[in-house]
Amino acid sequence: VPIIPVILSGGGGTRLWPMSRPANPKQFLALTSAQTMFQMTAERTRDATAFAPPIIVCGADHSDLVREQLDAIGIIDAQIILEPCARNTAPAIALAALAATDPKAALLVMPSDHVITDLEAFHSATAAALPLVEAGWLATYGITPTGPETGYGYIQMGDPIAPHIHQVVRFVEKPDADRAASMIAGGDYLWNGGIFLFRADIFLEALAQYAPDMLAAAQAAITDAVYQGNIIHPDANAFAACPSDSIDYAVMEKAKKVAVVPADMGWSDVGSWDALYDIGVEAPVDNALIIDSANNLIRSDGIRIHTVGIKDMIIVASGNDILIIPRGRSQEVKKIVEALKAEKS
Amino acid sequence: VPIIPVILSGGGGTRLWPMSRPANPKQFLALTSAQTMFQMTAERTRDATAFAPPIIVCGADHSDLVREQLDAIGIIDAQIILEPCARNTAPAIALAALAATDPKAALLVMPSDHVITDLEAFHSATAAALPLVEAGWLATYGITPTGPETGYGYIQMGDPIAPHIHQVVRFVEKPDADRAASMIAGGDYLWNGGIFLFRADIFLEALAQYAPDMLAAAQAAITDAVYQGNIIHPDANAFAACPSDSIDYAVMEKAKKVAVVPADMGWSDVGSWDALYDIGVEAPVDNALIIDSANNLIRSDGIRIHTVGIKDMIIVASGNDILIIPRGRSQEVKKIVEALKAEKS
Repeated sequence: VPIIPVILSGGGGTRLWPMSRPANPKQFLALTSAQTMFQMTAERTRDATAFAPPIIVCGADHSDLVREQLDAIGIIDAQIILEPCARNTAPAIALAALAATDPKAALLVMPSDHVITDLEAFHSATAAALPLVEAGWLATYGITPTGPETGYGYIQMGDPIAPHIHQVVRFVEKPDADRAASMIAGGDYLWNGGIFLFRADIFLEALAQYAPDMLAAAQAAITDAVYQGNIIHPDANAFAACPSDSIDYAVMEKAKKVAVVPADMGWSDVGSWDALYDIGVEAPVDNALIIDSANNLIRSDGIRIHTVGIKDMIIVASGNDILIIPRGRSQEVKKIVEALKAEKS
Repeated sequence: VPIIPVILSGGGGTRLWPMSRPANPKQFLALTSAQTMFQMTAERTRDATAFAPPIIVCGADHSDLVREQLDAIGIIDAQIILEPCARNTAPAIALAALAATDPKAALLVMPSDHVITDLEAFHSATAAALPLVEAGWLATYGITPTGPETGYGYIQMGDPIAPHIHQVVRFVEKPDADRAASMIAGGDYLWNGGIFLFRADIFLEALAQYAPDMLAAAQAAITDAVYQGNIIHPDANAFAACPSDSIDYAVMEKAKKVAVVPADMGWSDVGSWDALYDIGVEAPVDNALIIDSANNLIRSDGIRIHTVGIKDMIIVASGNDILIIPRGRSQEVKKIVEALKAEKS
């Protein structure tokens, strides 16, 4: 049974403002290559010997964007589920599991806005997890940590239960700095990258047990869905009634047979402009003239940027907006976004 | 006899790029107030009891700009001389002197892109110089130096020849740093601000003596000029044949009866973005959102600038271009302008 990739594209993050905006969020931007992060995610599982056509779950507003970006890379057989409203990851995955043509198929659930540079490691992890998944386990991918980050969730590995795969002892949500440091020092914690592998039916069974209201709402939304070619419009009223929750809280932290497959695969969630700089992608900056300047992240989709003597800066122009902020402070972009929101209200 | 203001608007400087551009150079920008520097220059001599309507000398390309900006402040009686090509200040002033309705009138020659904050001091200096000027002297205004600048010309004061006015001993063009420091220490040197007061006929006599070719070319250009209302189009071929030279080299450094009137009048030539910062004008920045940032010069005519944690920077946006350069390095804007020129050629 081929694995069904499930690509979660519902995010509308503002941490990469001004390029990432509600109408064109991060996953649809070409930040690290000529392809967008959504396209790179779809490309990761195109081997037809192992994978079925993908299921995309995205916001209804992004329907055209998703279809254009899939067309551009020649993926024409994706199923696209348009969320009528945002209800976090657990309901989105529930829609995909209910829409899966084969309920026993394994779903490879992937956020659409992460970078994975070592595809071989990614596919090896999937192969390592698959036998347990087919036997009914829920698997999560554990990212090898590169430092005591406080912005991520952590997963404690227990005993190995099969080659290269461990039972999960516990999940730890965004720890404080001390806790993060001690977890890193312990060596048995991995980052939770939000990538999962499980059978559709097993996930739905877990949902029935731990979040029955959510399952009922998702089922009602799919039962009354409108089908338009390969696009599924779940019923808006039914889905609006669905509780909003992440898969981690709703299912993974509660279920019994949860495994983690360590994956040292060059992962980044590109969660900030600093993170993009750290990846070290040398993007050509067509719209910039850079003199005696170094160690900057400079991006523009139109405005021509001219610098002399600028070091360690993040300079990002998009549309009619430009952001200028020292490297290391890109989390503070949210101050700009909040101030702009306040201006409008 | 009222003084005739002569406003030299032929400059096309690039030191304030990207706002100052050939089509819209510095003098036509509102950098220090709601009025442009050209308008502020024209406003300085509007007292009809002392001044005749002004003569404007500008590039033919800027004819519309000059008329619009004069109209906007209600000056409708200016004579406008359109230079067919740029020949530096001496020929420009020659055209004005030849066009002056009263040859014995004193001309107050002013660059159009300087700031003078103490108008009382300016007018006092003019009043102090006028009697000698009427008696046939060429007067220059000596700016009280604020430091050993190497970018300016200097004027050495000799003995007083009338109240508040001195004979000129010598002119020193842009000195090196040591020479500048020793001139400042001596206390008898002033900056040459390029502002002059002399009778039209006396200037033309000096030109006949020291630059006869220039006078002949300017006379031919005016003789064959086309008059269109209050706009004078000097003959292009005749003016093209005129040698190009500054009034300092062509006349002031050679003439015998040259006086300097010291003027401590809050002068700045706003010769760089740093100079504009130093003037300390707090311009409202409508197009900027500035968080935790200080001691910056931030200007924009459209692009929205957003900064967090930025200190001591010059950030100037105009049209589709933005310049980002540390304060203190704005002279290096010329590197950008040169690189852009090289790109085009």
